[in-house]
Amino acid sequence: MVFDDYRSYRDEKLIISVATTGGFHGKEANPNLPEQPAEIVDEICACRDAGASIVHVHARDEEGNHTKDPETFQEIQDGIQERCGDIVVNFTTGGSFTREELLRPVFETEPKPELATIDIGPVSLGQDLIGGNSRDKNEEFARRMREHGVKPELETFNPGHLTESQHLIEEGLVEPPYWFTLIFGMQTGTVPSPQNLMNFAANLPDEAEWQCLALGRDQLPLTTMATILGGHVRVGFEDNVYYQRGELAESNAQLVERTARIADELQRPVATPDEAREILGI
Amino acid sequence: MVFDDYRSYRDEKLIISVATTGGFHGKEANPNLPEQPAEIVDEICACRDAGASIVHVHARDEEGNHTKDPETFQEIQDGIQERCGDIVVNFTTGGSFTREELLRPVFETEPKPELATIDIGPVSLGQDLIGGNSRDKNEEFARRMREHGVKPELETFNPGHLTESQHLIEEGLVEPPYWFTLIFGMQTGTVPSPQNLMNFAANLPDEAEWQCLALGRDQLPLTTMATILGGHVRVGFEDNVYYQRGELAESNAQLVERTARIADELQRPVATPDEAREILGI
Amino acid sequence: MVFDDYRSYRDEKLIISVATTGGFHGKEANPNLPEQPAEIVDEICACRDAGASIVHVHARDEEGNHTKDPETFQEIQDGIQERCGDIVVNFTTGGSFTREELLRPVFETEPKPELATIDIGPVSLGQDLIGGNSRDKNEEFARRMREHGVKPELETFNPGHLTESQHLIEEGLVEPPYWFTLIFGMQTGTVPSPQNLMNFAANLPDEAEWQCLALGRDQLPLTTMATILGGHVRVGFEDNVYYQRGELAESNAQLVERTARIADELQRPVATPDEAREILGI
Amino acid sequence: MVFDDYRSYRDEKLIISVATTGGFHGKEANPNLPEQPAEIVDEICACRDAGASIVHVHARDEEGNHTKDPETFQEIQDGIQERCGDIVVNFTTGGSFTREELLRPVFETEPKPELATIDIGPVSLGQDLIGGNSRDKNEEFARRMREHGVKPELETFNPGHLTESQHLIEEGLVEPPYWFTLIFGMQTGTVPSPQNLMNFAANLPDEAEWQCLALGRDQLPLTTMATILGGHVRVGFEDNVYYQRGELAESNAQLVERTARIADELQRPVATPDEAREILGI
Ligand SMILES: [Zn+2]
Ligand SMILES: [Zn+2]
Ligand SMILES: [Zn+2]
Ligand SMILES: [Zn+2]
Repeated sequence: MVFDDYRSYRDEKLIISVATTGGFHGKEANPNLPEQPAEIVDEICACRDAGASIVHVHARDEEGNHTKDPETFQEIQDGIQERCGDIVVNFTTGGSFTREELLRPVFETEPKPELATIDIGPVSLGQDLIGGNSRDKNEEFARRMREHGVKPELETFNPGHLTESQHLIEEGLVEPPYWFTLIFGMQTGTVPSPQNLMNFAANLPDEAEWQCLALGRDQLPLTTMATILGGHVRVGFEDNVYYQRGELAESNAQLVERTARIADELQRPVATPDEAREILGI
Repeated sequence: MVFDDYRSYRDEKLIISVATTGGFHGKEANPNLPEQPAEIVDEICACRDAGASIVHVHARDEEGNHTKDPETFQEIQDGIQERCGDIVVNFTTGGSFTREELLRPVFETEPKPELATIDIGPVSLGQDLIGGNSRDKNEEFARRMREHGVKPELETFNPGHLTESQHLIEEGLVEPPYWFTLIFGMQTGTVPSPQNLMNFAANLPDEAEWQCLALGRDQLPLTTMATILGGHVRVGFEDNVYYQRGELAESNAQLVERTARIADELQRPVATPDEAREILGI
Repeated sequence: MVFDDYRSYRDEKLIISVATTGGFHGKEANPNLPEQPAEIVDEICACRDAGASIVHVHARDEEGNHTKDPETFQEIQDGIQERCGDIVVNFTTGGSFTREELLRPVFETEPKPELATIDIGPVSLGQDLIGGNSRDKNEEFARRMREHGVKPELETFNPGHLTESQHLIEEGLVEPPYWFTLIFGMQTGTVPSPQNLMNFAANLPDEAEWQCLALGRDQLPLTTMATILGGHVRVGFEDNVYYQRGELAESNAQLVERTARIADELQRPVATPDEAREILGI
Repeated sequence: MVFDDYRSYRDEKLIISVATTGGFHGKEANPNLPEQPAEIVDEICACRDAGASIVHVHARDEEGNHTKDPETFQEIQDGIQERCGDIVVNFTTGGSFTREELLRPVFETEPKPELATIDIGPVSLGQDLIGGNSRDKNEEFARRMREHGVKPELETFNPGHLTESQHLIEEGLVEPPYWFTLIFGMQTGTVPSPQNLMNFAANLPDEAEWQCLALGRDQLPLTTMATILGGHVRVGFEDNVYYQRGELAESNAQLVERTARIADELQRPVATPDEAREILGI
C-alpha cells in the first residue's frame, strides 16, 4: 500500500515504460513521433538505452493510420529482437476494431509479446464514441492471454474500473502480481491531481504493481509523485508530446532520460528489463 | 467544499430524494417494490409524508418491464399532481432505448418534470452491455432540457465522469447550482468507502449541490456520511431493497423515514419540497 | 484499517465511553454536570443503563475543584461496584499535579480501575500552560500500569502524538490491542473535520482499537462518523455540555442514549461492558 | 489550496530555505556542519549561489554549543551583509532559553533579520523535555516581531499547531501572506508520509505560503512532493546531514543544488531572494 511503499520506495526498482507512438495523434502533433516500423524500432532502442524496461507498442499503416495488421507488429517485433531484444514488449489491444482484430497482433506474432493491455473500460472518446471493454470482452481477453502466456496490463481510467479488475482477479483470470496502469486526464478519466493519484492508488488490491500514466502537462509531476509513492512510470508520445510548455520533445528517449534522471535524484534505482520481469512475475 | 460544508452542515437543509422503482429489479427482488402507476403514486405520497422532497420516477409496463411510454409517465404525473403535488418530480432518462425514446417522457408530459437525469457515462452493465452517454448525447440532452426548462441531474458513477460534467458547465449547457448525484457501488462505479466518498466530493466544482447514491448495504452508512458532509441523500428500492441485513424493506417510505430520523438525530433539518427548489434554483 | 473496518463495521460491537465530569468546567457550564461522588455514581449508573460500557472518571473536591484525592476516587469506585459494577472503570491521570499525585488514584484504590489514561502530550492549555507528558513520564506511567495490571488508554491530541505512542509499543510498554483516543478540537488538538478524522485514523498502527473524542458541537457528527468507520465513541460532559445548539444536555445519559440510538439506526450493535472487555483484551 | 496550486505549480517560484547549522547535532554528526561564524557565512554564501533565497540561522559558541549570544549572531549577520547580502535572513527563536534570551538575537542585531521563527508548540524532545511555546509566549513573540518589523515564520510540528496559528491570525498578530513551516518527523511531529503531507497542507488557511521541512531520509521525497504541490522547501544540515543512505553530505550547498536541480527538472523556477521577498510580502 501507499504508505508502506513510501517508506521503502528507494528499495524497489523503478520500471519505466515508454509508449512511443499510440493510436491517436501522429506527426502533425510532433514530427518526431515515430510511425513506421523502422522509426519505431529506432526509438524503442534509444529508449531502452535511456532506461526504459517496457515498450508499449502501437502500429500505423503507411499513411500513419492506426492499424492492427499483424505483419506490421511482426516487423516491429523483429526489429526489437534484432536490435534491443531484452526490452519487455507490450502490445496494445486498444482501438476501434473488432475483438479478433484487436487480438491478432498479440497471438499471431513470434515471439508473442510478454505483456498486452486490457482497456478496462468504458470511457468516452471525442464527441460520439464510447471506447473500452464490456465485462464479457475483458473476460475473453484475459482468458485468451492466460492461455497464450501473455500477462495482461490492466488499464484503468478511473477508480470505477478497479471493480471490474477485481472481478477478473476473483475469477482467476489474472494472476498476481497484478499489473495496473492508473490513467489521469482523459475525457472520463480521473481528473489529474496529487490527491486523486493518492486516492486511486489507495484503492488497489494487495499484490498489485502499478504505473502512473498522465496526459500532457500532468505527465511530469504525477509520474514524479508515483516514483515517490513506490509506483512505476509510463512516459512517451502516446500520452504527451511536449518536453516543456511550448517546446515539443525531440524524442521519446528525451522523456525517458528525464524520468531516469529524476529517479536517480530521488535515489530510486531504475529497473533493467530483467528486473522488470522479476517485479511483474514474467 | 467539503470541509466548509461540514462546519455548517446543520445550517443547510437536507434534500431526501427517493427512487421508488428503478428499471432493473422488480417484485422478485422485493414484493413491496411498486411497479404500476397507482402503486408508484401511493408510494411517492407516503415518501412525501415521510420527508422526501424529490421523487425519481421510472415506469414499468403491465408485465413489470422497464418502459419509456409517455402515457405511463403521464399517468404517474397525474397521480402525483392530484395527491401529493408539491413534491419535486424527477424523470429518469436512463436505460437501453434510443435517445428519442429516453427523452419523450420528459418532454411529452404535462406538467413537465422539474428535474430529469443525465447519466454521464459510460458504465459497464452486466455481462456485455455498456450503458451511458457519449459527449454528444450528454450535450443534446442538456441542451434540450435547458430549452424545455427542465433542470438536469448529473449522474456521475465515478470521479472520471466529473470531467464530462465540467465540459457541460463550460459549454453553458447546465446552470448553477449544478445538481450532482455521486454513485457508489455499480460495476464501473466507484468502490463504496468513506475515503472514496470524501475524495469524490472533493472533486466537485464550485456552486455544486450533490447527493449520495450508494447501492445495497452501503446506502445507509454512506448517505449518513453525506448528511454530515453537507451533501444530500437518495434512498429507495431502485438502489437498495433491504432495511437491514436479511430483512427486506417494507416500503420506500420506511427507508425515507429512517433517513429523516438520522437527519433529525444529527440536527440537520429535512428540506420541504419548496426548500429543495430553493436549494437547487428551480 | 479504516477501509476494511468500514465494510464490516456492523460486525464489530460499538464501545460507548462516557466522561461524565472532567476536570475543567463545572456546574457553571451545565448545572447537570455531576461533581460529587454520589452524583457521579448516579450518572454513571444511568449511563450504564443507556448503553455505556466504559466510564472515564474524574473527581472533584467539595468546592468542585479538580482533585486527585484517592479517597474520593475510592468513594466513586465503591458506589460503582455497589450499584452498576459491571461497567469498565477508567481513571484519568490528567491534570496539573505531580506524577505521584496523578497516579495515586489508579494504584491506591480497590479494586483498581481496569483502564487509566495516559495523555500522550504535550498540548497547549489556556494562556500559559503546557499540559501533557514527556517521553519519560509516558514510559513511567505505562510501565507502572503494566505492573499493576491496568491497561492504558493512549490519549492522542493530534497525529504527532502517534509517534510517541509507537515508541511505547516498540518498548513493549503497552500491549495489543492498543486502545487509542483520537481527540479533536482542543488548542493544539487536531482541527475537527471529517477529513482529519479519516487521516488521523489512517495513521494508527495495526492491532489498534480507537475511539473518537470531539469537543462541543463536533462531538455528534464526528462520533457518528467513527461509528461508521469501525471506531468507537466517547461522549459526555467532559467534552460537550450541549444536547444541541443553544440547549444544554439534561444529563450525560441523554448523550449516551442518543449515541446508542444512532448506532442502532446504523445497525451497529452496542457493546456490553463484557463485550468491551473482550474487544480491549482486559 | 493544494489542488489549485498543483495545476499552476510551474507558475509560482520556488523558495529554497537552507538551515545550515541548527542547535542540536554538530560536527560529530557531520564534520562538514558549520559551527563558527566564519564557517557559517561561507556556507550561506555557497548556498546562496546554489539557489537558496532564505537562510535560517542558529549560532554556536566556541565549543560548538547552542548559543543565543547576540554578538555571535551579529558576527554572522555582518558576514552575510558583506559577502552575500541579498539573501533573506531568518533567525531562530528556538531552544531551551528564557524568552528574553531567545529574542535578543532578533532585536539586538543590525540590520535586524527579515524573518524569525516562532515554534508554535509544544513538542516532546528527547527523554524529558517539552519544547515549544505556550499561547502567551506565541502572542508575545508575534507582537514584538510585528513591532520591530520582523515577519514571523510559524513552525508547525503537527496539524494541531494550526489551531494556535489561527489564533494569532485572528488576533491580528501576524499578517498575510502567512509563512508556515510544516514539519515532519520529530518526536511529536507528524509522521512523515505523502498522505500526511497532503492532509497537513489541506488544513492551511487561505493566504498561506508554506514550506516543507522533513527530517533525515524523508527530506528528499517530501520536499520534492512540496515542489509539485505548490509549496516551498527547506533543506540543510539542521534537518538532515546525509546526501544519500550511508553517505554524509559534503556541504549544505550540495543539498541546495540537488533541490534546485529537481525544481529545474520539474520546471518550477527557483526564486531569487528578491522574488522570495515578493512572495512573502517582506
Ligand atoms: Zn496505447
Ligand atoms: Zn433511475
Ligand atoms: Zn478526562
Ligand atoms: Zn532551527
